[in-house]
Amino acid sequence: MNYNIAVIPGDGIGPEITIEARKVLDKIGEKYGHHFNYTEVLMGGISIDTYGVPLTEEALAAAKKSDSVLLGAVGGNVGQSDWYSLPPDLRPEAGLLAIRKGLGLFANIRPAVLFHQLKAACPLKDEIIGEGFDFVVIRELTGGLYFGERGTTTENGIRNSFDTLRYDENEIRRIAKRAFEVAMKRNKRVCSVDKANVLDSSRLWRQVVEETAEGYPYVELTHMLVDNCAMQLVRDPKQFDVILTENMFGDILSDEASMVTGSIGMLASASLGETKLGLYEPSHGSAPDIAGQNKANPIATILSAAMMLRYSFDLEEAADKIEGAVKTVLEKGYRTIDIMSEGKILVGTKKMGDSIVAEI
Amino acid sequence: MNYNIAVIPGDGIGPEITIEARKVLDKIGEKYGHHFNYTEVLMGGISIDTYGVPLTEEALAAAKKSDSVLLGAVGGNVGQSDWYSLPPDLRPEAGLLAIRKGLGLFANIRPAVLFHQLKAACPLKDEIIGEGFDFVVIRELTGGLYFGERGTTTENGIRNSFDTLRYDENEIRRIAKRAFEVAMKRNKRVCSVDKANVLDSSRLWRQVVEETAEGYPYVELTHMLVDNCAMQLVRDPKQFDVILTENMFGDILSDEASMVTGSIGMLASASLGETKLGLYEPSHGSAPDIAGQNKANPIATILSAAMMLRYSFDLEEAADKIEGAVKTVLEKGYRTIDIMSEGKILVGTKKMGDSIVAEI
Ligand SMILES: CC(C)[C@H](C(=O)O)[C@@H](O)C(=O)O
Ligand SMILES: CC(C)[C@H](C(=O)O)[C@@H](O)C(=O)O
Repeated sequence: MNYNIAVIPGDGIGPEITIEARKVLDKIGEKYGHHFNYTEVLMGGISIDTYGVPLTEEALAAAKKSDSVLLGAVGGNVGQSDWYSLPPDLRPEAGLLAIRKGLGLFANIRPAVLFHQLKAACPLKDEIIGEGFDFVVIRELTGGLYFGERGTTTENGIRNSFDTLRYDENEIRRIAKRAFEVAMKRNKRVCSVDKANVLDSSRLWRQVVEETAEGYPYVELTHMLVDNCAMQLVRDPKQFDVILTENMFGDILSDEASMVTGSIGMLASASLGETKLGLYEPSHGSAPDIAGQNKANPIATILSAAMMLRYSFDLEEAADKIEGAVKTVLEKGYRTIDIMSEGKILVGTKKMGDSIVAEI
Repeated sequence: MNYNIAVIPGDGIGPEITIEARKVLDKIGEKYGHHFNYTEVLMGGISIDTYGVPLTEEALAAAKKSDSVLLGAVGGNVGQSDWYSLPPDLRPEAGLLAIRKGLGLFANIRPAVLFHQLKAACPLKDEIIGEGFDFVVIRELTGGLYFGERGTTTENGIRNSFDTLRYDENEIRRIAKRAFEVAMKRNKRVCSVDKANVLDSSRLWRQVVEETAEGYPYVELTHMLVDNCAMQLVRDPKQFDVILTENMFGDILSDEASMVTGSIGMLASASLGETKLGLYEPSHGSAPDIAGQNKANPIATILSAAMMLRYSFDLEEAADKIEGAVKTVLEKGYRTIDIMSEGKILVGTKKMGDSIVAEI
């Protein structure tokens, strides 16, 4: 088969990590008889530098036309880059928000997995880690505070700003469904996180999630308040299977969850909509400090490509192959600097990519 | 001196832990020649059961008239209590929001301290704990999503809910000032947490915090995005001195911070306004499951009473005395069940209170 992939290298380490993911995809193509065509698309800082905006209409159209999108990372160092003296909607991150909205990617799926080989990097005590953890955060991605009405005014000389957290039942239902479907393929437990003791939007959230649950009688649904969830992720992350939450809470909790695993350089993510087209990107940022130095860990991006094969192209076997190759390479002791530990073999970005290719 | 304290025992373990704090205060009174008068005030579930509302006007008036307020905890188990079939503004927690607003308590101060004697209870690895941590989360408490306009409507048969995150510069400035003042008495570092890459309210927050910083040239100000902060609290909590943030982010981050210390049964909090009157309460909840069983840990409430002496009554020496007594009792090996570990002496709520009294 032929697959058209829009590749958005982005900023910082983005270009070098997406290159490695492409090498891996090409090897998969060779092995399984697929052909991956890549179209490079600019987004973020590099798009600002080239076109003055973080995402052009042409770039969005190219992404829309593709079968799926692979993203490196966007943005720079706030203190050091000129991009951040621009108005907010012209900064690199605005490109990311625009492409999410533009492609209708309402479901952000972020696996939080502890790689056994990297147990030492997990910040939690061994008693808490136990057999390790493996859960998924499903975050609503195109609603809530991110896209509600906002504004800044001055009344009687007093500056005043507001943002709006708004959801309608359809937005809640479609993400809830997605969470239940993911849970059906896992351990069948959804924990929906909200702040229903304070927010109207959370009370509607809880109600619609409960209604949706009726269609999934085999899935156990629980509710948790967001402040409690922030604690439970540290106290006992093993308790979770699928965490379902709104955009802003999901931003905070999914990052906390990544850090808790200690495997943040390894964690992939998928942003999905109603169609097969998805956007796949590593959970980590653009790390401008180490850009271009062959130091970045390409694994999260490579595993994001694997997620693409699984979710967008239904190539289960090929996805498994990539994930297996990553595990083998870790077992053999290869480590980039971010996950390096005593007695292991330090490798650069390229060598890590090549080693994974070699295992496929 | 004579001090009038409004005591709100509240629900669950609230009554038994506030009793212990009163014993400690009485001993302090004896020792230093002060007299503490207590007025019991109903709030939360017990007020609903008695008066049908979580906080009566009389109760609020009694709190207003006092020199300071000591609170146990409010609320029950959502699944098990009738309180939660009431409309949101009649539930126990609404009493807490009403008293915060009614007394103008805009500054929530929550120390996150790791007690060396409880190092084993900290969920983080020893390398991360290092010499331990000691920082403070300062959360804005009467603005933002908690008190903005909200509503639920149905348009064309579609339910739709919203909440509003609103701040004006005066609200931001007064809490920022408080944070800088607290930092001046500590290690002179404020980390202001926001989501300025997305929210207008966060951009105003950042601007006003920077303006306020000009009045505190000895304090180092940094900014951190809320998702990053949720990670940093797990990765390296030692980096923080004072964290300053808005209401909803503060709800999440202060709970995460408490859990990260592993000493959650020990952590006090103060909610302050423009006057000396404050509300002091433990960081933990009402724990209905163990209520009335002489199992609850009274230390967080006792340390909240110490904070009251320090912040509301300027009785530094007496506050130090209580804090010292708590440390001594821990050193002697006394533990309630929540902080129990091998080789220590298990005691109940009353015995823990008595032991602290005995050290004063
Ligand atoms: C860059 C930023 C706007 C973005 C978000 O908040 O969604 C990022 O933190 C993420 O989680 O992908
Ligand atoms: C009970 C609830 C309304 C409250 C809050 O969210 O402020 C609590 O979580 C807290 O932090 O004191």
